[in-house]
Order: sequence, then structure tokens, then C-alpha cells
Amino acid sequence: MSENAKKGRLIVFSAPSGCGKGTMLKEILAAGNYRLSVSATTRDPRPEEIPDVSYHYLTKDDFSSRVERNEFLEHAEYCDNSYGTLLSEVDPYLENGVNVILEIEVQGAQRVRAVRPDSLFIFVAPPSIDELRRRLHKRATEPEEVIEKRINKAIEELTHQDEYDYIIVNDALEDAVNDFFAVVRAEELKTAAEK
Amino acid sequence: MSENAKKGRLIVFSAPSGCGKGTMLKEILAAGNYRLSVSATTRDPRPEEIPDVSYHYLTKDDFSSRVERNEFLEHAEYCDNSYGTLLSEVDPYLENGVNVILEIEVQGAQRVRAVRPDSLFIFVAPPSIDELRRRLHKRATEPEEVIEKRINKAIEELTHQDEYDYIIVNDALEDAVNDFFAVVRAEELKTAAEK
Repeated sequence: MSENAKKGRLIVFSAPSGCGKGTMLKEILAAGNYRLSVSATTRDPRPEEIPDVSYHYLTKDDFSSRVERNEFLEHAEYCDNSYGTLLSEVDPYLENGVNVILEIEVQGAQRVRAVRPDSLFIFVAPPSIDELRRRLHKRATEPEEVIEKRINKAIEELTHQDEYDYIIVNDALEDAVNDFFAVVRAEELKTAAEK
Repeated sequence: MSENAKKGRLIVFSAPSGCGKGTMLKEILAAGNYRLSVSATTRDPRPEEIPDVSYHYLTKDDFSSRVERNEFLEHAEYCDNSYGTLLSEVDPYLENGVNVILEIEVQGAQRVRAVRPDSLFIFVAPPSIDELRRRLHKRATEPEEVIEKRINKAIEELTHQDEYDYIIVNDALEDAVNDFFAVVRAEELKTAAEK
């Protein structure tokens, strides 16, 4: 009796690298009723990337005119390129009751918070910095200095975790995924008073 | 890394009769780490009741002097008798990390909210009034007019459901119990910002 025609929820999902965000997302998306938003960018595609799956690749002119036409939920410049989330990636799905996940870093989350404060902000944290270091080394695809850079970035990002609504510590993957679903379900059960 | 020495949570659990609250509680308590608070009362025990399990039965004098010594979390008069929740039923368990459930009606919940606003307030609702009526008739232990009284009371109680943090519609028992656990887990993952 508290159910009305249900819209989807916009979920901001942030995690330092090495927190298992990718694997978690794969499991979450497999559950259905979730969609991962595809970002737009003006940077060139990398060899392994797939257009409109990895990113929507836009020319600088196209990007700017879309900004002027207010087609973006959020956007920013980074290293001479533009990145952003198109509203068309988000709102039509929410309207249809699908939960839309934005995989976005801390600054992006802050931009989303400014325009959509009622979104669900979830931060995925490592059990510890030591464990994060261990995982990044185990992956062993990157030179030592890149790993140290990632760890320092992670430490910086962790200082922002309290800006989020929920923190999921990804110690064991299944537990972390179950925690994610518990959060989304609990949010559905919240009364207006709690929201 | 967001885990500190964890206290239990005080959970206020309200539901009109016929909402399956008893069965839900049985399942929840079986999961461990939950304790159902035993209320104190000055009324006489009924034949089927067990002292210190159904209620703590206190004399009127004992009850009053405990009120004076601030031993109650909340208490009230009802039909010439006193009812209340002793702090000793709640705080020692919370300190030990056990979640304490208060099974209490709407007015009791309001009293708890006044003194412990950080508690978790969960309301269990029936899928519909028609379904509630069907369930109460199916139980068939009570005359028609008692059932109608219960339904009218339920309708009144439902007008208060938005005072709670979460509403769980008990359509299927297992789903309702899972919803309960999702809510408690999500609350554990909340950041200070969200609390």
C-alpha cells in the first residue's frame, strides 16, 4: 500500500581503483533492472574501447553545443578533454523504472550531488590500504610507480567517503554485492519522513 | 575501514494485528544477534502467559518507584494499568552489540522517538485492508465484531506509518523478513552524512 508507479533510482557509484568496482558492477548488472550509464568524452578512443559502450565519442564542437543545449547532467574538463553524463543516458531509463548507475569519481559525484541531491551515493572502500596495495600488486599489470600513484589517489579519495550516503567495504565480493542490493532495497522501503 | 566497536541498534517494530508481525519476529530472532525486549506491566498475567517472557509483572508500587528512579525508557497508562520498557531490557544488550527490538504500538513508538530519535523505526503494513480482513477471518479465532474492531484500529494505525523510517509490506513472509534484514544492513552501511 506504499507502492506507486515506481521510477528508477539514480545511483552514484564511486571507488578507488583496486576496490573491485568492476567485478561488483558486473554482478549487479547481471541482476537486471540496472543500467550502467555510458559517459561522453571528446578524447580519442583507445584500441580496446568500443564506441557507445566504453564511451560516446563526441567532437569538441558537438560536445560544446550539447552543453549549450543543456543536454548534460554533469560535465567537466580533464587534461584538455571534456567528459560528461548525457541526460539521455539517465532520465528515460529512470522514467521506465530502471535504476541507473553512474560510475564516477569523487569530483563527478560532487557535481551530481549539486544537481540531483536525491540520488543514492554509494562509495566502495577497500578493507585497508595494505589490502589495496596487495590487490594492485597481485594484478601486476602496472609498474611500481603507477601502483603507488593509484594508492595515493585512493587515500585521497577515501577522505571523501563520508560525503556519500553509504560505504560498502569490499572485503568479499559476494558480501559487497549483497550489501549493495540491501542498500537499494532499504532505500525503496524508506518513508518520506526518512528521505 | 569504517567499522568501529559496534553497538547494537534499537529497533522499534510496529504493525497492526494480522500483518504477520509475530511470524516475522520469530524468523528474525532465529537469525541471532537480535533480542526482543520484554515489557513490564502492572496488569495480571493471563493463563497462557509466562512471567519474564511474556511480560515482567510488577506491582503498582514497584512500577511507580521504578518510574521515579528513571528505570524506564518509556511507559504509559492504559485501562488502569501501566506498561513500559525498562532500560535494563535495552541498554546492556545494545552495549554488547546486540540489536534490541521493541514490539510496540504507534503511541509507544512516538514515546520512544521522543527519547531515542536515533532508533530505527520500522512499520509492517498489510498488502491491503481487504487482505488484512481476509487474514483475520482466516485465523477465525475471534467473533466478527472483534475482527471489525481490529480492522478499524489497523486503519487508524496505518495513518501513522509515515512517521516511521521504513515501511515493509508483508505480502510474502520470506520477502518481508529479507526486507527487514536489508534495512538493518543498509543502516549499518550508512555514513554519518546520511544519518
